[in-house]
Amino acid sequence: MMKELEDHDHVPESDNRSSLCHHDHSSNNEVSLAFLTRLMAEFASDRDWDKFHSPRNLLLALVGEVGELSEIFQWKGEVPRGLPDWKDDEKEHLGEELSDVLLYLLRLADVCQINLGDAALKKLKKNALKYPVDRCKGSSKKYTAYKNEEIETHDP
Amino acid sequence: MMKELEDHDHVPESDNRSSLCHHDHSSNNEVSLAFLTRLMAEFASDRDWDKFHSPRNLLLALVGEVGELSEIFQWKGEVPRGLPDWKDDEKEHLGEELSDVLLYLLRLADVCQINLGDAALKKLKKNALKYPVDRCKGSSKKYTAYKNEEIETHDP
Amino acid sequence: MMKELEDHDHVPESDNRSSLCHHDHSSNNEVSLAFLTRLMAEFASDRDWDKFHSPRNLLLALVGEVGELSEIFQWKGEVPRGLPDWKDDEKEHLGEELSDVLLYLLRLADVCQINLGDAALKKLKKNALKYPVDRCKGSSKKYTAYKNEEIETHDP
Amino acid sequence: MMKELEDHDHVPESDNRSSLCHHDHSSNNEVSLAFLTRLMAEFASDRDWDKFHSPRNLLLALVGEVGELSEIFQWKGEVPRGLPDWKDDEKEHLGEELSDVLLYLLRLADVCQINLGDAALKKLKKNALKYPVDRCKGSSKKYTAYKNEEIETHDP
Repeated sequence: MMKELEDHDHVPESDNRSSLCHHDHSSNNEVSLAFLTRLMAEFASDRDWDKFHSPRNLLLALVGEVGELSEIFQWKGEVPRGLPDWKDDEKEHLGEELSDVLLYLLRLADVCQINLGDAALKKLKKNALKYPVDRCKGSSKKYTAYKNEEIETHDP
Repeated sequence: MMKELEDHDHVPESDNRSSLCHHDHSSNNEVSLAFLTRLMAEFASDRDWDKFHSPRNLLLALVGEVGELSEIFQWKGEVPRGLPDWKDDEKEHLGEELSDVLLYLLRLADVCQINLGDAALKKLKKNALKYPVDRCKGSSKKYTAYKNEEIETHDP
Repeated sequence: MMKELEDHDHVPESDNRSSLCHHDHSSNNEVSLAFLTRLMAEFASDRDWDKFHSPRNLLLALVGEVGELSEIFQWKGEVPRGLPDWKDDEKEHLGEELSDVLLYLLRLADVCQINLGDAALKKLKKNALKYPVDRCKGSSKKYTAYKNEEIETHDP
Repeated sequence: MMKELEDHDHVPESDNRSSLCHHDHSSNNEVSLAFLTRLMAEFASDRDWDKFHSPRNLLLALVGEVGELSEIFQWKGEVPRGLPDWKDDEKEHLGEELSDVLLYLLRLADVCQINLGDAALKKLKKNALKYPVDRCKGSSKKYTAYKNEEIETHDP
């Protein structure tokens, strides 16, 4: 792990400066989009891989990872929330594939100079206005009507 | 926007309690995965939409949004980083589609009970060890060799 | 439909020469990959759209259509084969999206100068050898073992 | 290859009856959608794998294969039609991934009881009417207007 790398005398300076070494791991879902974006940017520039990170290259890499994610679920049939029957190694693999999608998505936003946190909050507000709670909950209208509308406008 | 909803007398209590109303918008890329995940969870439960958020439903919705994202780029040809020639409305639309992908990804991780921040940090460390800077940078090996290896193992 | 176009005096010559006008529609699933590929090639060159049909443009357009296809299924939950409860218009829409994916796939193969019929037959043979019937059927091994292997090697 | 299987005395009957053994390989892009669909159906039923071929399982498998296809192109940057610089093994691998996508697509259409040949011809006619040659070619309007319209309506 990174800790082992820190202990070695020969660790290149760029590894020592990595933000990853100094991160407080106590509450990892509190990690910000900015932090992960910064780590991805350092990772690429440290290895001189920026020239490969054009928008369309990253987009196709993202599509590749979404394919990987889909393969995990493809023969499972319908699985319940919480994935109660999955073994630890299956859940770990799922975490890796979800991470791969997230990391390429953040990197893509970054090279397109889009502030993804800002965009995500705006989109949530837009969705909240579009689907007010009092209209969507307990309405006599079939849920599918709202969901179909959601599909047409591509809103989560 | 959400502020307007707060001003109305008849705003349902669930809208008043929304975390979105109390968020400091000054540094939106510092927003955490946990915060966005929580907003998505509230959004769904407020509208009684949890029953639609099974893992495979969310995965297919994610695939749908990745399709939307791809459509933005499909006829553009190769575009440079920073998207210098894109108009404001095109960049805003891109931000919305990137957000849709992010929001479904976070929701999928949540319903699968995967701590995505934790998984992403682990994956970054795994990648850093797999591709040490001193080996990957300025090496006489063609970059494609590293990249092909990256492709085979699905690492960003 | 195309028949109406044929009846008009002013139909541009290129529409008259379209292979689509002369196709025997009696057994449409007997239509060949080559025929559909030819129709797509004519469609593009008639409109001078070839310059937009680079491999990566077509690939992203394909991804966009796969997204459209996924949206049809995303909130349905698990659906049985034959889609017994689907209305005619839903099935027609599904047919359109499946077609969009097929047409872009054939076009992509064509511009990459890949004989897709040949490749598909080769792949089927490769799969048949890899998964011999006597080993895969009624074996005491759990099916999931074969399926996992299928996933790892990306074989249908 | 399949020919070798035919020569063996112990070839299980199901392999002897395979349509693949009796196919005229002289013009493989003339192979029909129906023929490939039939081969896929036999492949699955011979191995008793029909129970895994639900619509959503096949759709996710298709998404997985599209991911595989994307990975081939992800670090290439913009590649010209004909892929002039690609080596034979790269083109063969591309043919395999394109085939995997095609085979799952045909299988998905089949289990959904959609006649894909019929649907594809209908869609082509619909597109031809929507984008008449005389309007789309040599028009003073910028091509992007037509293409944007194409994007919005999801037409190839």
